[in-house]
Amino acid sequence: MTFTLQDLATRFGLELVGDGGSRIDGVCTLTPGVPGRLGFLSNPKLRSQLADTKAAAVIVGKADAKNLRNGLVAPDPYLAYARIAALFDPYRDFPEHRHPSAVIAPGVKIGKGCCIAMNAVIADNSVIGDGCFIGPNCVVMQNVHIGPGTMLVANVFVWHGVRIGARCNVQPGAVIGSRGFGNAMSKEGWVEVPQLGTVVIGDDVEIGANTTIDRGALDDTVIENGVKLDNQIQIAHNVRIGAHTAIAACVGIAGSTRIGSRCMIGGAAGIAGHLKIADGTIVLAGAWVSNSLEKGIYGSAIPVLAQRAYRRMAANVHRIMSLVDRLRAVERKLGIKPQEAPGEDDV
Amino acid sequence: MTFTLQDLATRFGLELVGDGGSRIDGVCTLTPGVPGRLGFLSNPKLRSQLADTKAAAVIVGKADAKNLRNGLVAPDPYLAYARIAALFDPYRDFPEHRHPSAVIAPGVKIGKGCCIAMNAVIADNSVIGDGCFIGPNCVVMQNVHIGPGTMLVANVFVWHGVRIGARCNVQPGAVIGSRGFGNAMSKEGWVEVPQLGTVVIGDDVEIGANTTIDRGALDDTVIENGVKLDNQIQIAHNVRIGAHTAIAACVGIAGSTRIGSRCMIGGAAGIAGHLKIADGTIVLAGAWVSNSLEKGIYGSAIPVLAQRAYRRMAANVHRIMSLVDRLRAVERKLGIKPQEAPGEDDV
Amino acid sequence: MTFTLQDLATRFGLELVGDGGSRIDGVCTLTPGVPGRLGFLSNPKLRSQLADTKAAAVIVGKADAKNLRNGLVAPDPYLAYARIAALFDPYRDFPEHRHPSAVIAPGVKIGKGCCIAMNAVIADNSVIGDGCFIGPNCVVMQNVHIGPGTMLVANVFVWHGVRIGARCNVQPGAVIGSRGFGNAMSKEGWVEVPQLGTVVIGDDVEIGANTTIDRGALDDTVIENGVKLDNQIQIAHNVRIGAHTAIAACVGIAGSTRIGSRCMIGGAAGIAGHLKIADGTIVLAGAWVSNSLEKGIYGSAIPVLAQRAYRRMAANVHRIMSLVDRLRAVERKLGIKPQEAPGEDDV
Repeated sequence: MTFTLQDLATRFGLELVGDGGSRIDGVCTLTPGVPGRLGFLSNPKLRSQLADTKAAAVIVGKADAKNLRNGLVAPDPYLAYARIAALFDPYRDFPEHRHPSAVIAPGVKIGKGCCIAMNAVIADNSVIGDGCFIGPNCVVMQNVHIGPGTMLVANVFVWHGVRIGARCNVQPGAVIGSRGFGNAMSKEGWVEVPQLGTVVIGDDVEIGANTTIDRGALDDTVIENGVKLDNQIQIAHNVRIGAHTAIAACVGIAGSTRIGSRCMIGGAAGIAGHLKIADGTIVLAGAWVSNSLEKGIYGSAIPVLAQRAYRRMAANVHRIMSLVDRLRAVERKLGIKPQEAPGEDDV
Repeated sequence: MTFTLQDLATRFGLELVGDGGSRIDGVCTLTPGVPGRLGFLSNPKLRSQLADTKAAAVIVGKADAKNLRNGLVAPDPYLAYARIAALFDPYRDFPEHRHPSAVIAPGVKIGKGCCIAMNAVIADNSVIGDGCFIGPNCVVMQNVHIGPGTMLVANVFVWHGVRIGARCNVQPGAVIGSRGFGNAMSKEGWVEVPQLGTVVIGDDVEIGANTTIDRGALDDTVIENGVKLDNQIQIAHNVRIGAHTAIAACVGIAGSTRIGSRCMIGGAAGIAGHLKIADGTIVLAGAWVSNSLEKGIYGSAIPVLAQRAYRRMAANVHRIMSLVDRLRAVERKLGIKPQEAPGEDDV
Repeated sequence: MTFTLQDLATRFGLELVGDGGSRIDGVCTLTPGVPGRLGFLSNPKLRSQLADTKAAAVIVGKADAKNLRNGLVAPDPYLAYARIAALFDPYRDFPEHRHPSAVIAPGVKIGKGCCIAMNAVIADNSVIGDGCFIGPNCVVMQNVHIGPGTMLVANVFVWHGVRIGARCNVQPGAVIGSRGFGNAMSKEGWVEVPQLGTVVIGDDVEIGANTTIDRGALDDTVIENGVKLDNQIQIAHNVRIGAHTAIAACVGIAGSTRIGSRCMIGGAAGIAGHLKIADGTIVLAGAWVSNSLEKGIYGSAIPVLAQRAYRRMAANVHRIMSLVDRLRAVERKLGIKPQEAPGEDDV
C-alpha cells in the first residue's frame, strides 16, 4: 500500500512540509530510517537524529517544524504516527470465513463479516457481533456475547455468560471468566465457594497475552471502556477497572478492588483486595499497594544495589524503628528538637 | 431450581428462623439483596445491612440470630453459604458425551459419565476416571491418570505420566508437567538436564488459570490433597506442597522447596528454592522468602509511599547499616547504652 | 534401554572406575539410589551419601574419585549426568507423522521427520524445518519460519512472521509474537500503536510454559542463541536478550531493554524499559532493576521478617532520610565526623 504525503496530511488533518507528492509505503524508526517510509520524532532527546534520517518523511511536533525538510507537523506526533501506521498493519485484515474445522454449536448467532478460524469452538447460545475475528483454537463457551469488531487472536478462553464489548482486542492465551478464588474453610478442608457472577468488558478494551480475569462471586467483575491490559495480568473476582486505565504487564489485583478511570499502573505492581484507587492515580512499577489511594503518584520498589550494599541493607532494614527510638533518646539528652522532614511522619 | 427454607435447613443441618415455607431460587449479596434469594452475613462489619436487605432469607452466625427475621443460623455462615450456593451453580453439570471433534487415542480408558468436549485430545494409555470433564481444547498426553470427578475446564495441558487425583478442578490454561528448568553449563553453553520425574496431584486440588507446575528432575513434584492454587502460580520442579495449603495468585516457588500443610501464601509472594516452610505458616502478600521458616506469620513487602517520600526512601535505604554504626558512635560518646527493641537484633 | 558403564565411559569420554560391565538402565538420585541405575555427586554437601547409595554406579568429580567404588569420573559431574540422562529421556522421541486432525494450509513447507500432532494449526507460507515436533493444539500463523529440530510441545502460539532457530524447545502455553503494548493517548482515549516488527529467536533457545514474548513495534524483539527462559516470563517489545543468558521464572522485562550475554536473572525480578544490562551480570531473585547495570551482582528484595518486625519495618522505612539528617545534626553538635561506610554514599 502506498500513499502520498499529501494524502496522509489531508486524511489525518496534519500540516504538510516539503513535497506533498512524496510516496510513502510504510513506517520506520528515525535512525537509520528507511527510504520511502515515514518516521516520527516524539522524544525531544532524539531531536538530533532528524538531520540524518534516511526516512522519506518525518512526523514532528510544532517545536521541530522549523527543522523539518519533508514531512508532517502534528499536535502529538506519536499519536499521529499511531494512526498513520495502522494503514500499514495487516493485523485486523481478514476475510469473512468459517473454517471447516471450527466447531460451532447450532444455536450460535454470528454477525456479518466474521472470520471463525481453524479449530475455534463456540458453544450454545453465544452471540458474535459483526466483523469479529475468533482466532485459531479459541474457545467461547455458552451464553457469551461479543460485540462487533472484536478480535480474539488465538487460544483465548471465554467462559459462560461473559460479555465483551465492541472493537476489543484479546491477545493469545488470555482467560476471561475463570472461577474466582473463593474457598471457605471446613473441618475437612477448603470448600469451594461457587462463583456465580460473570465478567463484563466494555468497548475498545485490550487484554494481553496470558492475562487472566476471574468471574465474580455474586456480582460481576467489570472492565470499563478503553481499558488497556498488558500481558500476564491477573484480575481477581469482583474487581472493577475504570475507563481508559492502562495496566502494564505482570500486575496482580486482588478481589473486590476498584480502580478508578485514567489510572496508570506500572509493571509487576501488586494491589491488595477491597481497596479503592482514585481516578488518575499512577502506581509505579513493582509497587505494593496495601491501602486505598487518593489521586497521586505512588511507589515502593527498592532499586537494585550492588551485592555488598544489598546484603547490608537486607540484613539491617528491620532495625529502622529501633534507630528512630535510639536517635530520639540521643536528641533528648542533647536538647535537640527532632527535625523530621515536613510531612515525613504522616506519610 | 427452587428449595424451601425448611429443605435447606434440613439438608445442611442448620437452625431455621422464620418461615420454613419461604421459597429460595438462588443466592445473592446482602446489599441490596434480591427477593426470592438467600443472602449471608459473615463479616460483622456488615451487620447493619441485615435490617435492610431485600433477600428473602439470610444465613447468619449465632451472634446475629436474635436479629434475624427469616433465614438460617449456622456455626459458620460463609461455609454454609458455600455449600448451599453450590446447588445453584451449573458449572459441574454436564452430560455424558464424547464430542466427535475430540481426538482420543485407541488405548485410552474413559470412565462412566464423562464429558470429553470439543477438540479435546487424549493420548495413548491414559486413564480417565468416572464423571470427569475434559474440556474444549484440553490436551492430555500419554500415560496420564486422572481420578474420578475431576474437571479440566479448557485449554489445559497435562504432560506424559502425570497423575491427578479425584474431584480436582483445573482452570483454563493451566500447564501440568512441563519441563523443569534444569540446565548445566558447558563450554558451548547450557545443556538441558532431562526432567525424568513427573507431577503427582492429590484429591480435591484446585489449580488456577494459567498456573504452571513443572515435572520433577528425578523425583516427582507433589501437590497433596486439598491444596488450592489460584491463577498464574509457578511451581518449579520437585516442589512439594502439603495438604490443604492455599496459595493466592502470582506466587512463584523455586525448585525443591517443601511447603507444609495448611499454610496460606499471599499473592505475588516469591519463595526461593531448597527451603522448608513449616505447617500452618502464613506468608503475607508480596513477601520474599529466602530462608526456611518456622510456623509463624511473615512479610516483607513495603507498602506504597507518595512519590516524594518514595524517592527519598529508595535513594537512602542502603544507608541503614551506616546509620546503625554512626548512632553507636554517638551513643558511646554520650555514654548511652543502645536501646534496641527486644528481639530486634535477632530477627 | 540399557548401556554398560564402559559404553558410557567411552561415549562421553569419562574415566571408568570399577566394573565396566555394570549394566545401567536409567538414572537416579544418590539417596536412596536405585539398583541398576546411575547416580551423580555434584554438590560437595552430599558427599557423605556416596557410601550408602543403592545406585549401581555414580558419576563424581576428580575430588571424589578416590572414594568411588563403581562409576565414572568427570570434570563436571552434573554436566556429564545431564548428557547421559538424555539417553533415558523419551521426550524428544517421536515418529514422522501428520495427524489427520492437524490443519495445515496448502502453501506450508514441512521438512523430513516432522511430527505434526493432533489439532495443530499451521497457516499459509510457514516453513517448518526437518525433525520438528509441532505439538497438539499448537498454532503457527502465517509466514513463520521454524528451524530444524525445534519442538513446540503443545498449545504454543506463534504469530505471523516470527522466526525461530534450530533445536529450540518451546514449552506449553508459550506465546511468541503477541502485540507489543504500545498505545498513544488521544482525547478519546488510548489509540493502539501498530506493532509492525516481529520476534527473532536464535538456535538452542528454551522458552518456558506460559511465557510471553511480544513482537517489536518497528524493529524486532530478539532472543539470541542458547538463551534459556523459564516459565511465566514476560518479554516486552523490542527487548534483546544476549546469547546464553538464563532467566528464571516470573521475570518481567519492559520494552527496549537490552540484556547482555551470559547473564543470570533470578526469579520474579523486574527490569524496567530502555535499560542496558552488561554481559555476565547477575540479578538476584525478586530484584527491581530501574537503571542500567555494569557487570556485577545486584539485588534489592527484602527477605521476610516475622510479623511484628515486619509491621515496624514497613511503617518506618520512609523515615530513613529523616534519620540521616537528624543524625548529622547530632554529630555536628558533638563534633563527630560522620563515618559512612566506604562507598556507602555513592552506591
